[in-house]
Amino acid sequence: MRIIADAFGGDNAPLAVIEAAVKATSELGVEMVLSGNEEIIRNTAKDNNLPLDNIEILNADDVIGMHDDPKEVIRSKSGSSMAVGLKALAEGKGDAFISAGSTGALIMGATFIVKRIKGIKRAALGSCLPTINGGQFFLMDEGANVECRAEMLLQFGIMASVYVENIVGIKNPRVALLNVGTEDTKGGELQLEAYELLENSGLNFIGNVEARDLMNGVADVVVADGFSGNVALKSIEGTAKAIMKMLKTAFMTNLKTKVAAALVMPQLSVIKNAMDYKKIGGAPIVGVKKPVFKAHGNADCETFFSALKLLKTGVENNMVEKIEDVLGKDK
Amino acid sequence: MRIIADAFGGDNAPLAVIEAAVKATSELGVEMVLSGNEEIIRNTAKDNNLPLDNIEILNADDVIGMHDDPKEVIRSKSGSSMAVGLKALAEGKGDAFISAGSTGALIMGATFIVKRIKGIKRAALGSCLPTINGGQFFLMDEGANVECRAEMLLQFGIMASVYVENIVGIKNPRVALLNVGTEDTKGGELQLEAYELLENSGLNFIGNVEARDLMNGVADVVVADGFSGNVALKSIEGTAKAIMKMLKTAFMTNLKTKVAAALVMPQLSVIKNAMDYKKIGGAPIVGVKKPVFKAHGNADCETFFSALKLLKTGVENNMVEKIEDVLGKDK
Repeated sequence: MRIIADAFGGDNAPLAVIEAAVKATSELGVEMVLSGNEEIIRNTAKDNNLPLDNIEILNADDVIGMHDDPKEVIRSKSGSSMAVGLKALAEGKGDAFISAGSTGALIMGATFIVKRIKGIKRAALGSCLPTINGGQFFLMDEGANVECRAEMLLQFGIMASVYVENIVGIKNPRVALLNVGTEDTKGGELQLEAYELLENSGLNFIGNVEARDLMNGVADVVVADGFSGNVALKSIEGTAKAIMKMLKTAFMTNLKTKVAAALVMPQLSVIKNAMDYKKIGGAPIVGVKKPVFKAHGNADCETFFSALKLLKTGVENNMVEKIEDVLGKDK
Repeated sequence: MRIIADAFGGDNAPLAVIEAAVKATSELGVEMVLSGNEEIIRNTAKDNNLPLDNIEILNADDVIGMHDDPKEVIRSKSGSSMAVGLKALAEGKGDAFISAGSTGALIMGATFIVKRIKGIKRAALGSCLPTINGGQFFLMDEGANVECRAEMLLQFGIMASVYVENIVGIKNPRVALLNVGTEDTKGGELQLEAYELLENSGLNFIGNVEARDLMNGVADVVVADGFSGNVALKSIEGTAKAIMKMLKTAFMTNLKTKVAAALVMPQLSVIKNAMDYKKIGGAPIVGVKKPVFKAHGNADCETFFSALKLLKTGVENNMVEKIEDVLGKDK
């Protein structure tokens, strides 16, 4: 297996990406390709004693920034590390691509360079989020499509269901629709239409779910339009981070609270790890012809490596082919 | 001041409402009116030794349930405790109304019985949520309007700004638009249009805010359509509740962790209180001709009493007249 990684995406690039790539070649048994400025990659590796012997470099002098218009990945920045990596993937020079760079640009590039699977209306972004019982749920779309039609939500449900069954490993996953209430009369036109489509889809559709129940493990797949899915994702992330910060301050107050911290540390670490969205690793962009993953923008070596592991599972379990198989049935 | 309370709204009605009403007459110096089945109210009060001497009762034999269609409040359930209370308010028999019952029915009733202020396109629901520095932000709309147009979002911003300045007491509040990114190019058509309107509104508009930054105190007023506002509100509530539950389990693990809990309890209580959405008390339905507040569906006496205090502040500070003044300028 050959994974192409954007060496210049994310806050800790290129070092974190190079480190993770080196680790992946030795520990995951995959071949790695890095896209980006060869000179900088070689110098960074040299300065940090990272061996690049088994890693191929695809030179790309440009970088797409977080504030660039996503469309630039297929226009003025078609020479960027992201675009060059995606083109290599599309041309069969690798089995999958990953970047911690601009989400918008990656979705745009995946859609127009790697291209959508036939019959898929829109590619979508999803990821696993933690539940209080140590489980997880997969939320999709998380922001690729801020404006959606009901048929798109149906496809998100189908694609996410296939992904969760085959990559996360939950048989016959329970699919729910994110809504403002649980009754089937809730929501706007989009939700009412999507509800009906999902109910008649053959999926294990369990109805509407409210955002306040997401972390209680009430569903395995949660379908949303990209706007409200993004709001849910970031509200959960932000609240978890805020409470963890308040807890840290609480435990640092005085000697008594510092002793308390020491006593409960093993249990706190479990919660902290469960809530750490950097640990989630990678988020698949589902619906395109090859596996493309987004790594968290803050990804360090460890997070990027987790994402590479997940991506490897996706390739091994033929995530793209499985989606093609299922959506092929409907045509 | 005369406050009408729906004695049969919410999970703990009528007892919690009667208790809070009795407390309010003695501690807040307000007159209270309870709407609902007089016999049950009198018997409940008697069984719990609650004196009803200074409390008026408006008899209403019906109750609007959480699963009733909201429209029933103005149709088949126009004899319900909520509808009767709202009609009394509209007829000038009180200065404000509060209910812990169905949010949808309350918005419907407030809109069609109490009626909107002239020029207001839609009534909206807002509430204060906590920030990590002990402050708060006011989110609106939280679910009254799942489908919105940009002019509605502009009005939410104006009304919320007036509310926060006059009732919460933050001068020249910073107004932000909930969006999927901070750049002014982010979001769908609704957000792009609303951004422009808000920017030219004369409000202290600071641009887009992402859901992950809400609790960091980046804005005093956060404007959203009712669907994504509801998702943000419930994601924050749900995540806070989930983490608090995990913490409780962590502290109950063994003797060591129980000692830790005792040592850090004062600091934990501060966080727990800040995050307890029941403590928020009341949420105003803004844009109608008289103050109407929603109390939390799980409200106990204490929560309902907090909501009554907030409502009293709203009446004293002429929240409705202030909104009429500001939106009158635009006409």
